[in-house]
Amino acid sequence: MFGRLAAKQVPNKEYAVVPGKVNPDLQRERKKCTFDTLELTHFLDGGVEKYKDRKERENFFLSDPELMDDVPPELMSHEDQYRNGLKKACYLFKKLKELRENGGTIDNYRQLLGGSLGSAILKDGNPLALHYVMFIPTLMGQGTPDQCAYWIEKAWDCRVIGTYAQTELGHGTFIRGLETTATYNPKTQQFFLNSPTLTSYKWWPGGLGQTANYAVVVAQLYTKGECHGIHPFIVQLRDEKTHRPMPGVIVGEIGPKLGMNATNNGFLAFKQVPIPRNQMLMKNAQVLPDGTYVKSPSNKLTYGTMMFVRVVIVQDMASYLAKAVTIAVRYSAVRRQSEMVPGQSEPQIMDYLTQMYKLFPYIATVYALKFSAQWLWNMYNDVTAKIDAGDLELLPELHSIACCLKAVSTADTATAIETCRLSCGGHGYMACSNLPTTYGNVTAASTYEGENTVMLLQTARALMKAYAKAQAGEQLSPTVEYLNRNRKFRPWSNTVDSIVEGFKQIAAGKVAACALSLQRGVESGLSSEEAWNRASVQLVDAAEAHCRAFITDRHLDMVRNGMNELSPALREVMAQLCDLYCVFWALKRTGDFLQFCGIRGEDVQNLQDYQNELLVQIRPNAVGLVDSFDLRDEIIGSALGSYDGQVYERLLQSAMLSPLNAKPVHDSYGASLSALLRAKY
Amino acid sequence: MFGRLAAKQVPNKEYAVVPGKVNPDLQRERKKCTFDTLELTHFLDGGVEKYKDRKERENFFLSDPELMDDVPPELMSHEDQYRNGLKKACYLFKKLKELRENGGTIDNYRQLLGGSLGSAILKDGNPLALHYVMFIPTLMGQGTPDQCAYWIEKAWDCRVIGTYAQTELGHGTFIRGLETTATYNPKTQQFFLNSPTLTSYKWWPGGLGQTANYAVVVAQLYTKGECHGIHPFIVQLRDEKTHRPMPGVIVGEIGPKLGMNATNNGFLAFKQVPIPRNQMLMKNAQVLPDGTYVKSPSNKLTYGTMMFVRVVIVQDMASYLAKAVTIAVRYSAVRRQSEMVPGQSEPQIMDYLTQMYKLFPYIATVYALKFSAQWLWNMYNDVTAKIDAGDLELLPELHSIACCLKAVSTADTATAIETCRLSCGGHGYMACSNLPTTYGNVTAASTYEGENTVMLLQTARALMKAYAKAQAGEQLSPTVEYLNRNRKFRPWSNTVDSIVEGFKQIAAGKVAACALSLQRGVESGLSSEEAWNRASVQLVDAAEAHCRAFITDRHLDMVRNGMNELSPALREVMAQLCDLYCVFWALKRTGDFLQFCGIRGEDVQNLQDYQNELLVQIRPNAVGLVDSFDLRDEIIGSALGSYDGQVYERLLQSAMLSPLNAKPVHDSYGASLSALLRAKY
Repeated sequence: MFGRLAAKQVPNKEYAVVPGKVNPDLQRERKKCTFDTLELTHFLDGGVEKYKDRKERENFFLSDPELMDDVPPELMSHEDQYRNGLKKACYLFKKLKELRENGGTIDNYRQLLGGSLGSAILKDGNPLALHYVMFIPTLMGQGTPDQCAYWIEKAWDCRVIGTYAQTELGHGTFIRGLETTATYNPKTQQFFLNSPTLTSYKWWPGGLGQTANYAVVVAQLYTKGECHGIHPFIVQLRDEKTHRPMPGVIVGEIGPKLGMNATNNGFLAFKQVPIPRNQMLMKNAQVLPDGTYVKSPSNKLTYGTMMFVRVVIVQDMASYLAKAVTIAVRYSAVRRQSEMVPGQSEPQIMDYLTQMYKLFPYIATVYALKFSAQWLWNMYNDVTAKIDAGDLELLPELHSIACCLKAVSTADTATAIETCRLSCGGHGYMACSNLPTTYGNVTAASTYEGENTVMLLQTARALMKAYAKAQAGEQLSPTVEYLNRNRKFRPWSNTVDSIVEGFKQIAAGKVAACALSLQRGVESGLSSEEAWNRASVQLVDAAEAHCRAFITDRHLDMVRNGMNELSPALREVMAQLCDLYCVFWALKRTGDFLQFCGIRGEDVQNLQDYQNELLVQIRPNAVGLVDSFDLRDEIIGSALGSYDGQVYERLLQSAMLSPLNAKPVHDSYGASLSALLRAKY
Repeated sequence: MFGRLAAKQVPNKEYAVVPGKVNPDLQRERKKCTFDTLELTHFLDGGVEKYKDRKERENFFLSDPELMDDVPPELMSHEDQYRNGLKKACYLFKKLKELRENGGTIDNYRQLLGGSLGSAILKDGNPLALHYVMFIPTLMGQGTPDQCAYWIEKAWDCRVIGTYAQTELGHGTFIRGLETTATYNPKTQQFFLNSPTLTSYKWWPGGLGQTANYAVVVAQLYTKGECHGIHPFIVQLRDEKTHRPMPGVIVGEIGPKLGMNATNNGFLAFKQVPIPRNQMLMKNAQVLPDGTYVKSPSNKLTYGTMMFVRVVIVQDMASYLAKAVTIAVRYSAVRRQSEMVPGQSEPQIMDYLTQMYKLFPYIATVYALKFSAQWLWNMYNDVTAKIDAGDLELLPELHSIACCLKAVSTADTATAIETCRLSCGGHGYMACSNLPTTYGNVTAASTYEGENTVMLLQTARALMKAYAKAQAGEQLSPTVEYLNRNRKFRPWSNTVDSIVEGFKQIAAGKVAACALSLQRGVESGLSSEEAWNRASVQLVDAAEAHCRAFITDRHLDMVRNGMNELSPALREVMAQLCDLYCVFWALKRTGDFLQFCGIRGEDVQNLQDYQNELLVQIRPNAVGLVDSFDLRDEIIGSALGSYDGQVYERLLQSAMLSPLNAKPVHDSYGASLSALLRAKY
């Protein structure tokens, strides 16, 4: 309401946004494009049918004015951000129900709530998201059939709203160290939840603050005087009628953060809070009525959820990056600055090679991440099907590659988005560019669901095992096949194939060097743990090299084998992007190529020349490429990146939304400034 | 008020912050320190006298409760952030007046308002800062003696509050392209200011929105039908009594940003607004009453202010980084996580080599930047003294090194602060860690006062000139002396001297390669401008290499020659930090060392081993090193980084400040959530 009123106040009507008027530079760019952007959009969606589905879904949500903000959350107080977020989230859940009648699955929901659509609707986070993203999936994955029957129905119907409470003030990464206890009392057949220390306070779960009335709580299970490690429990947090905290439950929100301020992340502590025995999730381990503990057949069974989330993260990174690079590319086509040739008119800033270099590798990165995410998604489905059939063999490979992809994709995307933001100069620093918020969302992913350094060290651990196998002449799984000790690397030939081969050679070289460092460490008298710690900086580096080899391999493979149905014009552009991704990373890793692949100074110069050439080749298609991502203006959410390119009009329009601009003289003048101005010194 | 009340509500009194109680891990760390932290603090301050002055100044400001926030700005609406900022800024100005009576100079003020003290008091920006930082200095630098006499007194007394309005919506970097016009009418002896287009709106000046009533406005000067380029004009924006905008003045604020939301950045447009002739600042160029334009003797005379600001930026980067790395190091000493050895207690996370690697190079970076900033400050004073005497010879060298140092220091610091933040895991994402705000302040510096890529290309331009001179056998200025074509680089010897020498060799190699690329470009038929653009990615890279050579050279020189009075114990630690900075960067640039310095794979491995060794050597002194920065808790402003290390207590205390936690059930439950929970699906 306020927003619409204020928007009328644009100081000069001529400078208002004109619907349908497209910036002439953008029009020219679109004419230059050498391929059919719709063909590429269909390819990205996975076919015309899926394209139509998406458009329909987007229309269903994004054309609904109830889901759009009139006032940007950045103008609101922290409290109002939550109010606004909760109101919209409740409305969104009603709409999800309509979708559900059309057969939505929990995985649909989870992907819908994250990703570009979810963050378009609730750009600052969704206080209800964890209900579908974690609470219901955990019930499904870890409840007995009886538990599922009882709880999942209540949850689907939103008769309870849940969250997932695992992380504590003192423990995130090391979940075995969690301190919350659930102690079984066979007399009352209840578990008593307790928070023995300050560091045992649950901390971070989304929606926990003032929103959820139930939670899956992860706690150390004690029965018959013995600790059996962490297990999940369904705990009621708030009264279903009054919403007041249950007796013994201490709950609140953790306060403002870098981003996601409507998420209502909370803290939670218990003072001996009882729950019935059947609220321990017992699909795997069980506690019998008399307190006897029955072990889970395998402790790997709960990996599924974790893996799913990591797969989704890689997909989300590609979506967020597509958004950021669309904003920056369109802005760079509209923005004109300086003189390249004295006396001539100001060029579009995208004509500067340094600007192409900042942006185009990240158009390519969207594809690189997308293809890796697709492969991971397929493998995830493959592996979960096999797990259901009792076959756990592929799990370590999935785990290893998911760990490093999670880390590398989140770190790369964060860097990419900041580069996009900075490439828009001062205007990228404006909240209305949507680049700050996008960064806030993305950088969180470097920490949650497995801190990146920890993730890379997990991959490194798998690589060391694979290396030992390779040395013993054993068979290797596909993603580490290059460690085969009999493998001959092809010599350098200044082609993209050589770069991909090079990354494998580098990874192999680094893995071998790490193995040697570990061995040297132990030989020098360090314990194996100390030796591991001493080598850990190099181990992280090796895991990243492994991941880069994987990503470039996937990318090239898709370009060679996954695009047969595309037109030649489009295939050419796709090949340019793949080449650019590979060359860009090769040039960022010249030390590795010089050290491990036998290239020389001239080769580096050739790579630089080739990179420049690729940037210039991609230049005329840059706007077409980001148009092909087909992101609606509501998803873009940016004054700089809308389809019509009315950049300056939208900047001014956004400024007029500020309450500071509502009156000619702000009340703070009388309250503090006037006294300063009148003071006689 | 609210904050103090809410802080009482900590759910469990046992978990409240206890004044004076120091975390035992931090106590142990402090005992381990091998040097006298006070000795280092005195060295950093530049002597005991300056140390005492600083302590007194800090006490004057930071012990004043009026200047402390009860409610963190992150909880406030955008409008309240401004209200709060303005109130505190007015109070701060009153206190500055007291300082002035003790002989404060304008340069004191400027440094006081930025830097760690300024950002401790107004962490989200100061709407009055530009009055002292830009408005008064511009009057002083560009006004005639008469103008100075009239305006500076008014300004010092705060009878007017000014800002500096240069950047426009459509022009930042390219100031010659500014569109605002000031047209002289000899009949009325007035200039008429006008904003002919939307893109000519002034955009960004701090305090412009609702605060300043005057501004120095940079506009294209027209007289006698001719344009004479941009000139500065004093323009009244608001009535001195009512604070209402003057007729024809359109003014407001530009809306929320990534950070600095109390700065009140504004927009400004004119509809033929008249000002008297004597409000053009005429120290250099003049317009006579009849409209005759009298040129400035040199257009380089206005460089001074720009240079000063860049020097201050480099200093500020060191301060911000000292703050961030103090937070992260203290937190890493307090935080314990995981098992390094199964069954043993959880180690401090600072015992992980990967954590040392994330943090210690940035302790070293504080020194590296500080020493470069000192050199630059001395050179700045030298050059300005010479300019006053009419000698402009050193100006290009100052300009060249200031440009690249501005770019490299801001970019490095932004990366460093994000690394520090991420090293604190999830808790680093909390606003109360103060790391997000610190990043917001620092990353802005990559764009303002000269966009970083543009800055590096200016240095590159100077390097190309120097290279041509070198080829012609002409004499070179000290910072580019290594380009001398007769210089023999010493061979690699696995020492820090070799690394510093190596960076020069790399810079020389890259500069030569750029010159060759430019030549090849022109020979292939490109215009010199096109060839420059084609080589620009490499030119940026060469400028950065040049800067790295400069920084490492300064750093090593200080360790060798600037620390003779320090104790041996401290000198040893200083040398370790210098070595670490050099090795860290050498390992980030192995490609360059392999390509230009003739090192081999074994040398890289040696550097890695040496880096690991240095990290382990520095480990026991890490807390002592950050303690030596001697940053008061008010400057740290972080739940994670306070001197006493009561990390978890402060996190909980901060959470309790959230208004969402004021009542057991938030009003949004009744407003939206209860209907969802009760809906029957």
